[in-house]
Amino acid sequence: MTDANPLVAYLVRLGDDRLVLGHRLSEWCGHGPILEEDIALANIALDLIGQATALLRLAGGLEGAGRSEDALAYFRDAVDYRNALIAELPNGDFAFTIMRQFLFSQCALLQAEALTRSSNETLAGIAAKAVKEHRYHVRHCAEWVVTLGDGTDESHTRAQRAVDDLWRYTGELFAADAVDVEAARTGVGVDPTTLEAPWRAVVMDVLGRAGLAVPDTRYMQRGGRDGRHTEHLGHLLAEMQIVARSHPGAAW
Amino acid sequence: MTDANPLVAYLVRLGDDRLVLGHRLSEWCGHGPILEEDIALANIALDLIGQATALLRLAGGLEGAGRSEDALAYFRDAVDYRNALIAELPNGDFAFTIMRQFLFSQCALLQAEALTRSSNETLAGIAAKAVKEHRYHVRHCAEWVVTLGDGTDESHTRAQRAVDDLWRYTGELFAADAVDVEAARTGVGVDPTTLEAPWRAVVMDVLGRAGLAVPDTRYMQRGGRDGRHTEHLGHLLAEMQIVARSHPGAAW
Repeated sequence: MTDANPLVAYLVRLGDDRLVLGHRLSEWCGHGPILEEDIALANIALDLIGQATALLRLAGGLEGAGRSEDALAYFRDAVDYRNALIAELPNGDFAFTIMRQFLFSQCALLQAEALTRSSNETLAGIAAKAVKEHRYHVRHCAEWVVTLGDGTDESHTRAQRAVDDLWRYTGELFAADAVDVEAARTGVGVDPTTLEAPWRAVVMDVLGRAGLAVPDTRYMQRGGRDGRHTEHLGHLLAEMQIVARSHPGAAW
Repeated sequence: MTDANPLVAYLVRLGDDRLVLGHRLSEWCGHGPILEEDIALANIALDLIGQATALLRLAGGLEGAGRSEDALAYFRDAVDYRNALIAELPNGDFAFTIMRQFLFSQCALLQAEALTRSSNETLAGIAAKAVKEHRYHVRHCAEWVVTLGDGTDESHTRAQRAVDDLWRYTGELFAADAVDVEAARTGVGVDPTTLEAPWRAVVMDVLGRAGLAVPDTRYMQRGGRDGRHTEHLGHLLAEMQIVARSHPGAAW
């Protein structure tokens, strides 16, 4: 499995977060209540899937046997996926989708900024491109968070509910285990625990402007990095993988 | 209805072709057998939906009462849609999707090139942006058409079946009625009958290189421009419109 090589394991985590969340987001395509927003969400989804493709390609190339990004995306089961749980949660309403994207993208932006200094040049290059993308995602979503939180009673209620439901899934983004420590030690990766304070500063600022409060909970949900996923990931993968698995090795 | 004003009717046709086909194409998102191709198809879908948004916004603004592009997209029924039937056909397999996109995009490219000279400056601007997009779509799809037609027995068979099934839907793209004649007469639009010969030249060249033949049929399917659609459009619209119609006037 991919966990044998710490660098591969590190890259697969980065890739899986983006592949799963990008796929989730793409479910909105053609279903938004506003054409412009539909396009914006689909663009974010494409950026994330593009990043995932590059990260999984790099990971696959570093494996002993070597697997393509498509093999990694389409021929692993849920138990072999390493995304944080926050990425696989169902979209919920628009407020939930936007809030999750804001919380994730702000973390991803800080991560990508740090990874531009990675000792792995390919990863540094992927990160440099990703910084620009995440910057746009954060700005877009932060504006929506303020609009929703500071909007009608209905939109405020939905936005607050989104924070309440999502908060306990944010801790996993900043948890470090042996894989992260090794990635940071070798200069390839970044220790996620160092990202939490700057992330929190930005998030509290935006939520404050939106009139939204962080729930008073210390319990944080974990499991995705070890392959312990919610049942939602299985359904998502089933849908994502059906075409590729129905035509294995199809020579299109 | 939108048909009362010929210019509005003309723009709605252009917009509906792109909205419906863009939505069809977006159904591939996350279902392709190759990540890169998934992204390419989704990008084409986004371009088309973006063009549709601009065209329907222009159309809505010209109406007496004035309707937003969202009202036009989400609150019309199938019978009020004016897209050509080729846009609403289900995706079929990858060969069908690519072949349809090639046939449509080559027509759309010629149309957009002509519309850059429209007497309506907004439409000319939309067309100028669209030319670049369609050029990429045509190149991408034409390469695939050759790859599939000139590939394995299986891919050749599928590509030829796609041409056979799609050909009778191409005539509608070049049929002109009073709306088109009026749009061309006033310098706003282009007479679609003038696009058929150059379209055919390019299409025959690409199909020839792909080793594919055009079916020997003269019968052409029509109806979309008059609101006579296949049952497939109803299903597509139901899915596209459910969120907007569930929350009419939602003040997000």
